Amino acid sequence: MISLADLYAVFTAMVPLYVAMFLAYASVKRWEIFTPEQCSGINRFVATFAIPFLAFNIISSTDPYKINLKFILADTMQKLLILFVLILWAKFTRWGSFNWMITLFSLSIMPNTLIIGIPLLRPMYGEECIGLLVQVVVLQLVVWCPIFLCLYELHAAKVTMNGKVRFTNDTNEGKEGDEMMNVEVIFKKKNTPADECPGDLAHSNEREVQGEVTHPRMTTTNLFLSVLSKVMKNPNTYGSVLGLIWGLISFRWNISMPKIIHKSVSILSVTGLGMAMFSLGLFMGSQRKIIACGKRKVILSMVVRFIFSSTVMAMCSIAIGIRGIALKTAIIQAALPQGVITFVYAKEYQVHEEVLSTAVILGMLVSLPVALIYNLLLGLT
Amino acid sequence: MISLADLYAVFTAMVPLYVAMFLAYASVKRWEIFTPEQCSGINRFVATFAIPFLAFNIISSTDPYKINLKFILADTMQKLLILFVLILWAKFTRWGSFNWMITLFSLSIMPNTLIIGIPLLRPMYGEECIGLLVQVVVLQLVVWCPIFLCLYELHAAKVTMNGKVRFTNDTNEGKEGDEMMNVEVIFKKKNTPADECPGDLAHSNEREVQGEVTHPRMTTTNLFLSVLSKVMKNPNTYGSVLGLIWGLISFRWNISMPKIIHKSVSILSVTGLGMAMFSLGLFMGSQRKIIACGKRKVILSMVVRFIFSSTVMAMCSIAIGIRGIALKTAIIQAALPQGVITFVYAKEYQVHEEVLSTAVILGMLVSLPVALIYNLLLGLT
Repeated sequence: MISLADLYAVFTAMVPLYVAMFLAYASVKRWEIFTPEQCSGINRFVATFAIPFLAFNIISSTDPYKINLKFILADTMQKLLILFVLILWAKFTRWGSFNWMITLFSLSIMPNTLIIGIPLLRPMYGEECIGLLVQVVVLQLVVWCPIFLCLYELHAAKVTMNGKVRFTNDTNEGKEGDEMMNVEVIFKKKNTPADECPGDLAHSNEREVQGEVTHPRMTTTNLFLSVLSKVMKNPNTYGSVLGLIWGLISFRWNISMPKIIHKSVSILSVTGLGMAMFSLGLFMGSQRKIIACGKRKVILSMVVRFIFSSTVMAMCSIAIGIRGIALKTAIIQAALPQGVITFVYAKEYQVHEEVLSTAVILGMLVSLPVALIYNLLLGLT
Repeated sequence: MISLADLYAVFTAMVPLYVAMFLAYASVKRWEIFTPEQCSGINRFVATFAIPFLAFNIISSTDPYKINLKFILADTMQKLLILFVLILWAKFTRWGSFNWMITLFSLSIMPNTLIIGIPLLRPMYGEECIGLLVQVVVLQLVVWCPIFLCLYELHAAKVTMNGKVRFTNDTNEGKEGDEMMNVEVIFKKKNTPADECPGDLAHSNEREVQGEVTHPRMTTTNLFLSVLSKVMKNPNTYGSVLGLIWGLISFRWNISMPKIIHKSVSILSVTGLGMAMFSLGLFMGSQRKIIACGKRKVILSMVVRFIFSSTVMAMCSIAIGIRGIALKTAIIQAALPQGVITFVYAKEYQVHEEVLSTAVILGMLVSLPVALIYNLLLGLT
């Protein structure tokens, strides 16, 4: 059973995150301290400096030689299994579609492990689980984000071939309507800075689209180069890859970072958590409504995010033979709120951005009770 | 003598500040990551949240019952002595003027104690000096900032009476020219958000000027209300006064802050140092040139800031009988780079803003060698 002391520890870890988020939300909605472009300046700082430095700091201080292979295997199995089922669904069912496949995949496998997962799970299961979460973070940033970019680029290429894109646009009344939209809008639209959002990639809006315009059919090389260029422009990639490299060096030869470098990294990395939460709050405050899509989609995304994802993770973990704290970590980690990066991608490629926005915001609001319920249920076993 | 280990400790404390500042500078000047209004969003966050929370955290965790009265006396004596001499100069000499009196007073008594002083002096003289610095910070924020606001408001009132303001406008070629400027510009000019700068006060541009327009001669009540309204709108005031109140309570009855509140404050206060330095770097990057005023003014402001201020402080401290680390702290503290808040005031009231901008930026660049030279000289005694 979860004790009152455990509960207080979890609250102590989580309430400060909500305070930072709430102050930002109120700054926009009530006090009108920030204009939209001023918000985008803070978001850009978070995406370009705070989160990459935080990722570097956390990853580089975790021993990469102590990886839990079973945990990685279960994590990978969960993601591939879901991808496989979604591909079958998209190909062979009447309701299946490529863009919904991407969105559902995103909702199933991309929780906010770095910002929410680490502070939430530390008081629950101690330092033991942090190493496991760092593995998940590295894989998310180095493997799964590029895979999502591939999927979205493929989607964009399909759209270019068709000459236009169909997308479903649910209103809150549950009415469904199809809208035809010229691809020009997608390819020619220059995101203004005010369009930016938390976790936004620096310069991610500078897309290499010339190739696509001249040759509608995207070649594998084009796709590869396009994804590579995006990955290379993303400060998170540098943060996590450099963190991993330094971790491999320092734990192999037992070298610690010179204090002056460590402190130079820390001065910005310590801003990461607070600024990321503040940025999330600004994002919430700048959306017209917290729930931006229809009820059915809200329910679907919440079920996928908080139940389906962790159920598949639990099955895979048990099948592989993971037990104890690692199992609990795997399950709760899979049921964290939606990662902000997924909204950034959805917005950039205009694929169900309203669903992802709702999943991020509503996900944050319900994540604490959800995590506590999971913790309670897992404590009973 | 200063040892190599001491030197390294000072470098370890200061280089990270410069790294954060440099990254921001390069973000604006080279990488073009932030637009001017995006910069102002970050600056506004720093002024409204990061610094007030940092001030609260530092002040509330310092025992207010351990104040060093002699130190406060010396600090106050230095400031009043300089003010007295400057008033005489302004009243009775041919070169004296009220606006130069304010600027020279600002250059003499307002170092950047909170952001630069504390990290710089900690490795030099240990925790003992931090309590002394906190006293200086509290007095700066609670006593001297309001006094500056009074002086600037008086200046604005003088300007209103005359119907116009004369100000000297040196160019870099050393040419001097007088420009006549209608006060309407001062009173009617609405600062756009892009005009904001580090340390900017939230909503400080909403000036209560109606009274002044109807009654050109400002009454004492008007002056008091105007200053009070500005002080009350300044988040730094809340941060420092609340910090002081909590310090008085907690050290009196030995009550520690509930962990959940402490962490809620910390999540934003830890961003203070890094974000303040980043904001300074953005400020540097957004100015057209680092040295914005003529050579003579640069030399004057550097001499006042780095030599005059600490010389008077040394005299006052010795006269009062301060010795040892407290004396060294008093002297080096007086020779820190110019506080950013003074530039904000100068800009708002349009009194030698180019001199203050140069003093802030150039001051930051030369502060490390200056502090090391002082440390070396004081080590010899």
